[in-house]
Amino acid sequence: MHSPPIEKLIRIFKRFPGIGERQAARFAYHLALEDRAARADLAQAITALDAVRSCPECFRTLGGDICALCADPGRDHSTIVVLENDTDLDAFERAGVINARYFVLGGTLSEFGEGANTGQLRFRVFYERIKTAAAVREVIIALDATPEGNFTARYIEKILEPLQKTRSIKIVRLGRGISTGAEIEYLNRDTLKDALDNRR
Amino acid sequence: MHSPPIEKLIRIFKRFPGIGERQAARFAYHLALEDRAARADLAQAITALDAVRSCPECFRTLGGDICALCADPGRDHSTIVVLENDTDLDAFERAGVINARYFVLGGTLSEFGEGANTGQLRFRVFYERIKTAAAVREVIIALDATPEGNFTARYIEKILEPLQKTRSIKIVRLGRGISTGAEIEYLNRDTLKDALDNRR
Amino acid sequence: MHSPPIEKLIRIFKRFPGIGERQAARFAYHLALEDRAARADLAQAITALDAVRSCPECFRTLGGDICALCADPGRDHSTIVVLENDTDLDAFERAGVINARYFVLGGTLSEFGEGANTGQLRFRVFYERIKTAAAVREVIIALDATPEGNFTARYIEKILEPLQKTRSIKIVRLGRGISTGAEIEYLNRDTLKDALDNRR
Amino acid sequence: MHSPPIEKLIRIFKRFPGIGERQAARFAYHLALEDRAARADLAQAITALDAVRSCPECFRTLGGDICALCADPGRDHSTIVVLENDTDLDAFERAGVINARYFVLGGTLSEFGEGANTGQLRFRVFYERIKTAAAVREVIIALDATPEGNFTARYIEKILEPLQKTRSIKIVRLGRGISTGAEIEYLNRDTLKDALDNRR
Repeated sequence: MHSPPIEKLIRIFKRFPGIGERQAARFAYHLALEDRAARADLAQAITALDAVRSCPECFRTLGGDICALCADPGRDHSTIVVLENDTDLDAFERAGVINARYFVLGGTLSEFGEGANTGQLRFRVFYERIKTAAAVREVIIALDATPEGNFTARYIEKILEPLQKTRSIKIVRLGRGISTGAEIEYLNRDTLKDALDNRR
Repeated sequence: MHSPPIEKLIRIFKRFPGIGERQAARFAYHLALEDRAARADLAQAITALDAVRSCPECFRTLGGDICALCADPGRDHSTIVVLENDTDLDAFERAGVINARYFVLGGTLSEFGEGANTGQLRFRVFYERIKTAAAVREVIIALDATPEGNFTARYIEKILEPLQKTRSIKIVRLGRGISTGAEIEYLNRDTLKDALDNRR
Repeated sequence: MHSPPIEKLIRIFKRFPGIGERQAARFAYHLALEDRAARADLAQAITALDAVRSCPECFRTLGGDICALCADPGRDHSTIVVLENDTDLDAFERAGVINARYFVLGGTLSEFGEGANTGQLRFRVFYERIKTAAAVREVIIALDATPEGNFTARYIEKILEPLQKTRSIKIVRLGRGISTGAEIEYLNRDTLKDALDNRR
Repeated sequence: MHSPPIEKLIRIFKRFPGIGERQAARFAYHLALEDRAARADLAQAITALDAVRSCPECFRTLGGDICALCADPGRDHSTIVVLENDTDLDAFERAGVINARYFVLGGTLSEFGEGANTGQLRFRVFYERIKTAAAVREVIIALDATPEGNFTARYIEKILEPLQKTRSIKIVRLGRGISTGAEIEYLNRDTLKDALDNRR
C-alpha cells in the first residue's frame, strides 16, 4: 500500500531501537512531508557520522579529539567496566557511582545469532586491551539483564578466562536482586531467586 | 556532552513525531554504531523521497504513477474529506467507513505560528480545488481534536466561506462526543460538554 | 490455599468495581492484619448504609434529608439526565455542563442478563416519574459507551416510546464522536464511524 | 458533598492497599447500591476474620487448624525468612525458590512513626522465637526495597544483634541489584550503585 521509497524507509526505521511498524511509517511520512532541504540536511547529518571518531581506548563516541574519560589521570586504571553502548556509559556517568574506565562493546550477541551490529562487536580488541593492560585487576561486565546481555556476558567470561591463569584478574557481573523501590509481591521468580542467592 | 554530529542528529530526530530528547539520542548512537554502508543506505533512502510523487488531486504520497483512490470511478465525488497527513488517510481507509475522496493538507496550523511543515500546507491549492470541483457538495474536516486541529479547522472554514455564498456546499467537522468504550466518570469536561451539545 | 473466611472476602471484593483476584486478596489480608476494633468499625460503617436515604426524586445517595439538586428552584425542570450511578452524577456536577435534573438508575442491564445490582434498577420508577412530570420535554440518556450502556439505553428508549405518542418529549443520547484531545490515527473503527455519522 | 456514612467508608477504604480517594468513593457507592443482604454478608465476613487464627509459629493466616508449612518435617529448620505479610509469603511459595520456614511480621515500621498496623508488629515474639530456636543458623530479611522496608530491616538487625554474641547466626538481607529483564540505561542511581556494590 505504501510506495517503494516509503516502504524502504519503514524497513530501516523498524531497526531503530524501540520502533515498530506503525511508528516507522509515521517517520517515513513525516520525512515525505518535509521539504527537500530538510531531507538533505538529515541525509548529510547521517553521513557526517562517518567522520565521528571513537576513542581508540574505550570506543565510546568522541565529542572532540581526545576522550576526556580515558585521558583523566584521576580515573582508576585497575577497573574496567564493559558496556553495550554509549547510552549505557552515559547512565553510569550520570549516576556517578564508579571512578573506573570503560569499554564500549558496540552491541550484544544473541544466542540465536541474530542481533544488530554484531559485525561491529569488539571482542578481539577488548581481549587485546585487557591482555596488554597489566594494571587491570577487575573487569565489570555491565550488560542488560536480558537473554542477550546474559549470553554476551558468558561469552566475555570465556574469552578472558585464559588471562586468569597467568594473572590475578577478577571478572564479575553486576549484582542481581531487588532493585531500589521494588516490592516483594511483584517480583518475578528469577529476580526472587537472584535476590535469595545474593543475600548478604 | 555529545559530539557535534551526534548533537545535530538528536536535534533533527526530536522533530520526528512522538520522539523526545532521550530516544533521539538512542537513535543517533544507534546510527553511530551502524557501519558506513548502512548509513549511506539510509541517507540515500531519505534523499530518494525527493522523487516520490504526491497525487496532484489529493496530495497523498503515491505508490505508483496514478492515485488509485482518485482514479476510482466508484468513489463519491460530492464529498471530500480533508486530512492532516497520509497516516490519517490510512486510518480512514483501514476503517472503511466512507466512500468519499480525500485531500491531504500536509500538516496543521498552530495558533502560535509554530508547527512543523507549515510552509507545505496546501490551503490555497485546496481552495482552488473546491472552487473548481462543482460536484463537491460537502467538505468534511477530519483533523485531530487538538488545539492545532481545531485552529486549522476554523481556518479552513474561513477560507471556504466565500464559496458558500454562490453555491450549496456544506462544511462540517467530525462529530465530537464520547468515543466507543469510554465511561462517563472518566470523561474530561470538554468531552462531556461536547457529548451534551451533540446529543441526538 | 487461603482460609475459608479469607476466600469469602476475596469473592466479595472481586465484585468491587475494578478489583481483580490479586487485589481482592490484598484487601482480605489487609483486614486480617487490622485489629478487631478496626474491623468492627468497617462492618458497622457498611451496615450504616442501610440507613442512608436516596432522594425519592432522583435516587442519588443523600447527604442530608433533602436533595439539594432536586430542591433547587433554579434547576431546569424540562430536562432530565438519566445516569448509571452516583459517581457519574458527580462527574456531571464537577464539570458543571448542564443545569438539568437527574435520575440515577442504579446500574445497567447486560444483553446477557448478568450485570450487578440489576434487581435494583429503577426502570418502572423512572417511567412513572417521566409520565407524571408533565414539565419534562427532554430525556438525556447519559450512560457509558459500553455494550451494557448501549443495551440499557435502547431499553430506556423502548420503555419511554409510548409516552412520545401523547406528548412532545425528546429522548436523546449523548453525542458519539472524537473526544477532546484525541488524534485521528488512533481512533478505533466504531469511533471513526460515529464521528462521521455525527459530523456537523 | 457525600453523606456522612459514605464519607466514613471512603475514609476507611482509602487505607486499603493501593486505593485512592476516587476509587474509595466508587467502593462506597457500590456498597450503597447493593441490597441490605449483600451488605450484611460483607459485614459478617469481615467480622468473621476475628475467628481466623494465625499460625502460632510463623503467624501467617491459617487455612485450617495446623500450619502446613510449619508442620512440614521436610522444611529446613536452620533458615527462617522474615516477611511483611501473607501476600509476600504467597509470592515466595509460588516462586518455590527456598525450602526454609517463615515468620510474618504483620507490617513494617516507618522512620516517621506512621505506618499501618504497627501495634500488630511482632518484633518481641520474633526475637523470642529466634532466641529459643537453637536450630536457626540464618535469618533472611525479605522486606520491600522501600524506605519502610529498609528501616524495618535495620531494626530487626539491631534486635537480633545480641544473639550473635553467644551463637553463630547469620542475619542477611535479600540481594540488591538489577532485576531480571532490566536494562542498564533505565536503572535508577541507587539500583546502579547496589548492582556495582554487589558485583560478583
